Amino acid sequence: MQQNIRPSQRACNQLRPVEIIRHYTKHAEGSVLVKFGDTHVLCTASVDEKVPGFLKGKGQGWVTAEYGMLPRSTGSRMDREAARGKQSGRTQEIQRLIGRSLRAIIDLEKLGERSIQIDCDVIQADGGTRTASITGAYVALHDAISFLLKNGKISESPLKDSVAAISVGVYQGTPVLDLDYIEDSDCDTDMNVVMTGKGGFVEIQGTAEGEPFERDAMNAMLDLAAHGIQQLIIEQNKALG
Amino acid sequence: MQQNIRPSQRACNQLRPVEIIRHYTKHAEGSVLVKFGDTHVLCTASVDEKVPGFLKGKGQGWVTAEYGMLPRSTGSRMDREAARGKQSGRTQEIQRLIGRSLRAIIDLEKLGERSIQIDCDVIQADGGTRTASITGAYVALHDAISFLLKNGKISESPLKDSVAAISVGVYQGTPVLDLDYIEDSDCDTDMNVVMTGKGGFVEIQGTAEGEPFERDAMNAMLDLAAHGIQQLIIEQNKALG
Amino acid sequence: MQQNIRPSQRACNQLRPVEIIRHYTKHAEGSVLVKFGDTHVLCTASVDEKVPGFLKGKGQGWVTAEYGMLPRSTGSRMDREAARGKQSGRTQEIQRLIGRSLRAIIDLEKLGERSIQIDCDVIQADGGTRTASITGAYVALHDAISFLLKNGKISESPLKDSVAAISVGVYQGTPVLDLDYIEDSDCDTDMNVVMTGKGGFVEIQGTAEGEPFERDAMNAMLDLAAHGIQQLIIEQNKALG
Amino acid sequence: MQQNIRPSQRACNQLRPVEIIRHYTKHAEGSVLVKFGDTHVLCTASVDEKVPGFLKGKGQGWVTAEYGMLPRSTGSRMDREAARGKQSGRTQEIQRLIGRSLRAIIDLEKLGERSIQIDCDVIQADGGTRTASITGAYVALHDAISFLLKNGKISESPLKDSVAAISVGVYQGTPVLDLDYIEDSDCDTDMNVVMTGKGGFVEIQGTAEGEPFERDAMNAMLDLAAHGIQQLIIEQNKALG
Amino acid sequence: MQQNIRPSQRACNQLRPVEIIRHYTKHAEGSVLVKFGDTHVLCTASVDEKVPGFLKGKGQGWVTAEYGMLPRSTGSRMDREAARGKQSGRTQEIQRLIGRSLRAIIDLEKLGERSIQIDCDVIQADGGTRTASITGAYVALHDAISFLLKNGKISESPLKDSVAAISVGVYQGTPVLDLDYIEDSDCDTDMNVVMTGKGGFVEIQGTAEGEPFERDAMNAMLDLAAHGIQQLIIEQNKALG
Amino acid sequence: MQQNIRPSQRACNQLRPVEIIRHYTKHAEGSVLVKFGDTHVLCTASVDEKVPGFLKGKGQGWVTAEYGMLPRSTGSRMDREAARGKQSGRTQEIQRLIGRSLRAIIDLEKLGERSIQIDCDVIQADGGTRTASITGAYVALHDAISFLLKNGKISESPLKDSVAAISVGVYQGTPVLDLDYIEDSDCDTDMNVVMTGKGGFVEIQGTAEGEPFERDAMNAMLDLAAHGIQQLIIEQNKALG
Repeated sequence: MQQNIRPSQRACNQLRPVEIIRHYTKHAEGSVLVKFGDTHVLCTASVDEKVPGFLKGKGQGWVTAEYGMLPRSTGSRMDREAARGKQSGRTQEIQRLIGRSLRAIIDLEKLGERSIQIDCDVIQADGGTRTASITGAYVALHDAISFLLKNGKISESPLKDSVAAISVGVYQGTPVLDLDYIEDSDCDTDMNVVMTGKGGFVEIQGTAEGEPFERDAMNAMLDLAAHGIQQLIIEQNKALG
Repeated sequence: MQQNIRPSQRACNQLRPVEIIRHYTKHAEGSVLVKFGDTHVLCTASVDEKVPGFLKGKGQGWVTAEYGMLPRSTGSRMDREAARGKQSGRTQEIQRLIGRSLRAIIDLEKLGERSIQIDCDVIQADGGTRTASITGAYVALHDAISFLLKNGKISESPLKDSVAAISVGVYQGTPVLDLDYIEDSDCDTDMNVVMTGKGGFVEIQGTAEGEPFERDAMNAMLDLAAHGIQQLIIEQNKALG
Repeated sequence: MQQNIRPSQRACNQLRPVEIIRHYTKHAEGSVLVKFGDTHVLCTASVDEKVPGFLKGKGQGWVTAEYGMLPRSTGSRMDREAARGKQSGRTQEIQRLIGRSLRAIIDLEKLGERSIQIDCDVIQADGGTRTASITGAYVALHDAISFLLKNGKISESPLKDSVAAISVGVYQGTPVLDLDYIEDSDCDTDMNVVMTGKGGFVEIQGTAEGEPFERDAMNAMLDLAAHGIQQLIIEQNKALG
Repeated sequence: MQQNIRPSQRACNQLRPVEIIRHYTKHAEGSVLVKFGDTHVLCTASVDEKVPGFLKGKGQGWVTAEYGMLPRSTGSRMDREAARGKQSGRTQEIQRLIGRSLRAIIDLEKLGERSIQIDCDVIQADGGTRTASITGAYVALHDAISFLLKNGKISESPLKDSVAAISVGVYQGTPVLDLDYIEDSDCDTDMNVVMTGKGGFVEIQGTAEGEPFERDAMNAMLDLAAHGIQQLIIEQNKALG
Repeated sequence: MQQNIRPSQRACNQLRPVEIIRHYTKHAEGSVLVKFGDTHVLCTASVDEKVPGFLKGKGQGWVTAEYGMLPRSTGSRMDREAARGKQSGRTQEIQRLIGRSLRAIIDLEKLGERSIQIDCDVIQADGGTRTASITGAYVALHDAISFLLKNGKISESPLKDSVAAISVGVYQGTPVLDLDYIEDSDCDTDMNVVMTGKGGFVEIQGTAEGEPFERDAMNAMLDLAAHGIQQLIIEQNKALG
Repeated sequence: MQQNIRPSQRACNQLRPVEIIRHYTKHAEGSVLVKFGDTHVLCTASVDEKVPGFLKGKGQGWVTAEYGMLPRSTGSRMDREAARGKQSGRTQEIQRLIGRSLRAIIDLEKLGERSIQIDCDVIQADGGTRTASITGAYVALHDAISFLLKNGKISESPLKDSVAAISVGVYQGTPVLDLDYIEDSDCDTDMNVVMTGKGGFVEIQGTAEGEPFERDAMNAMLDLAAHGIQQLIIEQNKALG
């Protein structure tokens, strides 16, 4: 009766319902609304036929990401970062993570001297916005690559693999998968895991919120994460048809 | 055969399809997705049981607004204002307009010493984002007021009237209603009109983009605007059901 | 006995004394001190033989404006925007209005690939600083154009018309012209009107400060504005000799 | 025939014509336009019945200064600091100097727990803006003190002395007084001297622009400065009647 | 002959020489210069008898950290963050990590309503600045706690454990401990591990720089990290002696 | 028995112990730790084979300086300027002074089209950080020049002279040399003097902190400064060996 320990009544190894909606807005080369339960993130991919200054003339492209939360995506309204005049440390940490995760599965030389800019904007938040962002951003990136292939800008896909992300944690002593906001606020350990479709690790970020965690707990969390990411990869592939 | 002059094939006095979806996100006291054709804006209303410093102890409340566009809500990606570290002049101009429009139809003393913060975030843009924002924001504000009434925070609605907004312009010599992006980019005059449900003017902002305009053209535009706003008021009421 | 309703004792259709002093400072190509009663604004026009990046190579020039108030131009000292590190929304709104108004009466292709930068700095404020700014800025712009003609940089004036601006409002139920600070603080409606010498509208910005206003009031205000602007055009021409 | 060496044709120990106009603008408690030849600075003094946080409850007042140049006060237009979003190092250096100079001649305890904010805004620049600022700011400060005395806020003047400032330099090997812009741009040494009416030094800031300077040159410059400041003190007293 | 693969000629499980110098500067309550080989970081702990606003009246204290690099601590000069006007995303990421790591081993209620501010400033960088920072910051924090105990501000140490950090990576296919700059620039995987003296994990942050990494590699890296941290704990204790 | 008046027990004309340590960090072309008693400043010189935009193509180089204090270099912690998002007026004033002082003794044309960036970072402060910075920066600059000579980038040294700086003041009525923090906080006059090895003045900045000062006091202070700087020049030469 494992599910009783979770406020969400989910089994310990159970994801929230996942939904991946492509072509959500009309202008972007890739536009995906991803839902992990009540967490909804709009991920767009924009192609720009330029590279940043530090890459000019190096024969390679670039993929980068920005992240934001709508002010009332959360339970109590957050200040608008544009009005405050700067992005928080948390925002920068997350957008750096998204960017690294996507660059891990793309061959930047094959992309050619162009950039793909990923924007992940949280419409509604209920925990796990960074993992939903990475999972949705991969699909938006895939659509932007298809756009480039279809328009003859590149002749071969630079994607080497797929990528998805999930959170795991220790909640009331038990490792659980895909924490929602209530679980996240009350867990002992919180770990975000980014893995490729082939099963390699791209990023692991684990934090002891309360007590330090032991090697056993970490192994259990990584097992759960691998299990969850396999399902996300299936959802991504289903969405991409 | 007036409709032939418009790229959108609409009649000169024809609005785009309007859709007003309440309860679009779950956290805000008012949350409305408003669509004017392909222009989609998420308007949320957040209640805060405080007032800004300049109103403390004055026995009245406050309504204010912020506006933003998702970076790829537009045809080519715009810089994210949070990353650039400041809001553009255009953004500030629009959010000041939204705030004034809503304050025109609310009795701030009856609201009591609390604030309602309106956030208008453009998910997809195709012209008329400020008029859609005002039209949707009124519904979100109404829902936030209902929340306050239902929770016994106030005993009487401070709303004195409803408010909506529409753009009008002179396109190829002819006054037209509710310009979309293509029409807006190529019109001679662009005017945004904000009116109450009772038919009074709250704001008129007209700009000659090309040639200066004459009094006759302005009268024709104001007639169109009044016509369009009557329909928007009907849509608002229908949504509020 | 209409004048009794105005604190300024002026007739409803009466401007404050207008003074336009050219060559007020020695460095600028155009330098005009404009006075609308106790509102004094220094308007300078600076020629720059470059255009902003977005216009490079397009065979046209640019006219833009910046606006500022000296900290103690007002009754109580305002924070210095340079010290606060940003311009307020009001400042940006006004400088955008000034720039659009001037661009409406100049042929940017005939100006050639150069910029004219208008600076409007309020030395003393008593209401109507934006309308005084536009009215004075036109004269400064004219002087800068004369400078270019005299120096053989251009052979033909790019000015298509003249431009001036005035405020109108509804004060205690009566439409009045050219509101000073006391009248402006207590009026129901405030409208700024920008018109050309030939009588076309360039900008109309009307705001209901208290009650919404009706079509009749607007028509009366526009009549007053046209009357006032005709007199301002005469003053501009007199100053330009 | 000393005067031949100066582009301005002035004798080496000759000031530019000095003019001090009180009550230049109507809102400020002290408002002075000071002219050192073609250098024109508007100095206002604003009384604020508060002190900054670090002085609260300490039984003393505060005098501080801000400085700015209108963008086209100079030969070629400078960027507007409010638009750039920060004050330059030069601006901050000058406003700190003005503030220290004024605090040197006022008894802050006698001023009581209130602030006097000095604003020095350069309308037209031709060298020596900081010395003109200090010289004019003293008169504006004096008027603000008179305002406080007249209104019964203080019963005794906190002014201990008067203060004025002048520049001296070595131009083509010869010490000269009160450099204008052309002389300043081409001098070897530039020194700003602030002295009280009683003849004490408040600030000395000397910089070798080209070759280092010797003790003899410095002594000659200080003699010139003392001579110039005596005349400025006379002008200040004349203006104050 | 494992050591041959490392440019540093160290064995795969060998730390660089570690040095921990207490009382390095005279003002701070804790001041530690920590050296991991050529990486030198000055860690200071400053006691402030206040807590941030969000903790006022909650009966607990706070520990937070800031991080910076001197502009020429690195091979080529970096821009000074104070001059650029903002901290980079990397800087914020690191200082948030340091703060979380220290808060993991302190009982904030026992600390009482006061803050300890940790500053980690990199004097010379050669890889591993964040792990050296955490390792040195613990010692500085310990000294600040001793200061509070000695001065009778607290009667019992709030420290629950000690904490240290080390990097591990996969270099040319082999897991190695404590990467220096050359190794870090060329490794496949980079992982920072923060552990307590009792052996629990506080933070794990692993990134695949090139190829994704497998579970086996991760296990090997964690073994190395635990081995390295045991030695760092010994060095910390020796320094605190 | 002059020394009794100084809290430091030094004779009025006595410097604090001076130490100049070259090659303090390993990356910079010049790296000097300078100590004036308990004031410790790290001065680095970084060569950059570029010049700022305003000097491009002018056949000359540039020397500039930045200054910073570690947050806990002082008795109570100061806010980190990078976190606050701007450099204080004091910081900018000091770094401008350092830059001017160094440019006074270098032939920028002989330097060629390259820049030398000086960074002065205060590790521990006890008064006189700006004078220690200039004194140490000269040695770092000398080392950077030697680096350029050794690497054949220039064939002749562009250094025309050496430069050093010291503070003098009037403490309890007596002129004293090289004020430490306690003396500085309580002195009547504070003067910073920058002189070349040949004995010329580069900068003099004197401020009356309490009472205005007289010509005699200034002469006495300048004598002390010249005496102190001669000793600093000897220390610089000894260090450069």
